[in-house]
Order: sequence, then C-alpha cells, then structure tokens
Amino acid sequence: MAEAGTGRAAVRRGRPGYDQATVLRRAIELFNRQGYDGTSMGDLAKDLGLSKSAIYHHVPGKEHLLAAALDEALDGLSAAVDSAAADTAGGSAYERLQAVVRESVEILVAHLPAVTLLLRVRGNSDVELAALERRRAIDEKLAGLVREAVDEGALRADIDPDLISRLLFGMVNSLTEWYRPGGPVDAPVLASAVASLAFEGLAPRDR
Amino acid sequence: MAEAGTGRAAVRRGRPGYDQATVLRRAIELFNRQGYDGTSMGDLAKDLGLSKSAIYHHVPGKEHLLAAALDEALDGLSAAVDSAAADTAGGSAYERLQAVVRESVEILVAHLPAVTLLLRVRGNSDVELAALERRRAIDEKLAGLVREAVDEGALRADIDPDLISRLLFGMVNSLTEWYRPGGPVDAPVLASAVASLAFEGLAPRDR
Repeated sequence: MAEAGTGRAAVRRGRPGYDQATVLRRAIELFNRQGYDGTSMGDLAKDLGLSKSAIYHHVPGKEHLLAAALDEALDGLSAAVDSAAADTAGGSAYERLQAVVRESVEILVAHLPAVTLLLRVRGNSDVELAALERRRAIDEKLAGLVREAVDEGALRADIDPDLISRLLFGMVNSLTEWYRPGGPVDAPVLASAVASLAFEGLAPRDR
Repeated sequence: MAEAGTGRAAVRRGRPGYDQATVLRRAIELFNRQGYDGTSMGDLAKDLGLSKSAIYHHVPGKEHLLAAALDEALDGLSAAVDSAAADTAGGSAYERLQAVVRESVEILVAHLPAVTLLLRVRGNSDVELAALERRRAIDEKLAGLVREAVDEGALRADIDPDLISRLLFGMVNSLTEWYRPGGPVDAPVLASAVASLAFEGLAPRDR
C-alpha cells in the first residue's frame, strides 16, 4: 500500500538523506582538510555522494556552512568567557580565570573541528571578519580577567598582563594542532594539565 | 657607449628585477595571506609586477618556493634543537630545555612568515609531507629533552612529559598567531617571558 503511487518518493528515498548537522560536520572536515577557499560545493556534494544540484536542497551555499561552523565554535567560547568575566559569577578573578581556562579546553575538545576552522580564519570575507570581531571581543574579556587577577595580587605582575593572556590562551588554542579525541588523554585530564601547567609552571610539585 | 646595441638589455632594465630572496619573501607573504593552494604563480607575478612568463625567469615553480620557505623555517629550528638535544652541549637537560625554548622563540620571531607557513602545512603534497616529517623529528627530540629533564628531577613528574612538551611548544608556536615585529615587545623580552611563564608559572614572584 505504502508503495502505491510513490515512484518519486521511492527514487528520493534511494538518495542519501542527510540532516543539517551531518552536512555541517562533513563540510567542516573538508574545510579543515582542503582549506575553506580550496573547497567547492561540488567537492562537498561529491563527499556526501550527492549531485551538484542535490546539495543545494540541503544547504543554501558554502558561506552559510562557514557561518554556522564559526558560530558553533564562538557560541560556546563566548558563553564561557561572558560568565567568567561577569563578577556576579562569584569568586576571585583568579578563580574565574582558572575556571575559564579549564572550560575553554573542554569546549575546544567538544567542538574541535569547528574551533580548528575558527582559528584558521584570516578575514577573507564578511563572514570571516565578523568571526574575527567576535574572537577579538572574547580575547579582550580574557585579557581583562587576567588584568583583574594581577590587580588582586594573585598573578605575577612582572610580565605584561596582555602578554600573559596571549601566551595562556595561545597554549590552550594550540591543542587544535595535535589533540584528537579518543586518545589516552580525555578532556577533563587535559583541562587540568593545561591549567596546572599554566598556573603552577614546570617545577616539581614537592619543591 | 653602453647604450649602443643594447636595445634588449634596456627593455630588460625597464622591468622590475628581483633577487631570489625578495621573490621568496613576497611569495611567503602571499601564501600566508591567501593560502598556498589558493595562490597561483599568476598571483605572485601580479604581486611582483611581472608578466606570467617573466615570473618563471625568477623561479621554476610554486612548489620550489614552498620548499625553500619550509627549509628556511626548519633549518633554524633543527639546528637549535639538535644542539640542545646533544648532551655534549654541556649543562643539564633542564638548562638545555630552557635554552631551546628561548632560542625557538627567537628563531620564530626572526623567521616569522616562514614559520607561520610551516605551521599551516597539512601534508597535501610530497614537499609538505617532507616538511611534516622534519617537524616530527624536531618534536621527538624536544619531547626526549623534556623526558630527560623529568628524569633529572628538574621538572614535575605528575604530568606526562609528552603532554608537557606539546603544551610548552604549543605556547611557543602560538606566537605566530599574533606577534608582529616592531611592536613594544622585542624578541629577547618575549623569549624571557615565554620561558619564565612556562617554567615558573603564573604565581606572583614573591610567594
């Protein structure tokens, strides 16, 4: 009964069907592998086993996917930083900074492909410029939090706070270069190691 | 006299003439701005004010420039790491590790565009794969030096040495994301700040 008069539907059913999340995930993987500028909608269609015209049933265009990917990365990071930067969060600036370092590592691990893409954005289009602007706002809040912690006397004052902020989050962001989920180090262990190394340094613990 | 019978030479003299170093420098800038895969020899010719055929008088091809750029970045880093890793260098592993962190920062600053390009290489060609292989060899020597320093008891043993090595040099490499020469922080100050932050951590100095 269900088969009757459904010739077109049956043909459609024969095509691979993808939800938006899967299309986005596969697009991000391709962008990271080939570069955003080096990836065409045709490449994405091929990767998904769709025709060049069928891909447009799934997504309006390449830039739409880039924007969605960058939002995925930025939304998590913004939320973590906003909550840490707000002094209504309770706790000293030092405690809030430690929390946001750990949380950034966990977000980075949870959204690794999207964050990797974000960190490679150079501002070659309006979508990229908007993402860079959001990154800058995040970086400024983090630098402000570092300055607050220095003012509290909780962090060393002999290195410029902006330099501390850049090096600290540079270390966090460098995870995208080598960390792969499923390895021996899981996200909470990694987050603790990063925070401990940054705040305590490399000297043996019993000194 | 010199003008006689030199019609062709005069025409040539009218073209911009570039030495190899300048062509390489401009190529690296373009690769970093547009991506290597997104840059054609035509783009480079245009940037230099040369015709598409004239550019080939200066350089055999795009991959030749990439290889030269990656060698520039890798030669300095390899030399620094080889000398630090050799225990004939004198000094403890801890001292040699501190030296190589500082030296890496200075090389990175001195060869910033070439190192930036190196860190973006993903292995999309034989030239890129060879560069990744050299990077891996450098990373292994650095990790070995960290392990030696842990074994000496000079570095904390509660974090996996390979993880320490990745985070430490991840912080160093992250400089390429924001450091620009000519700013308020010069290379020796930066090298000291990175080493001090990594080895001593963020706690106030008077604790």
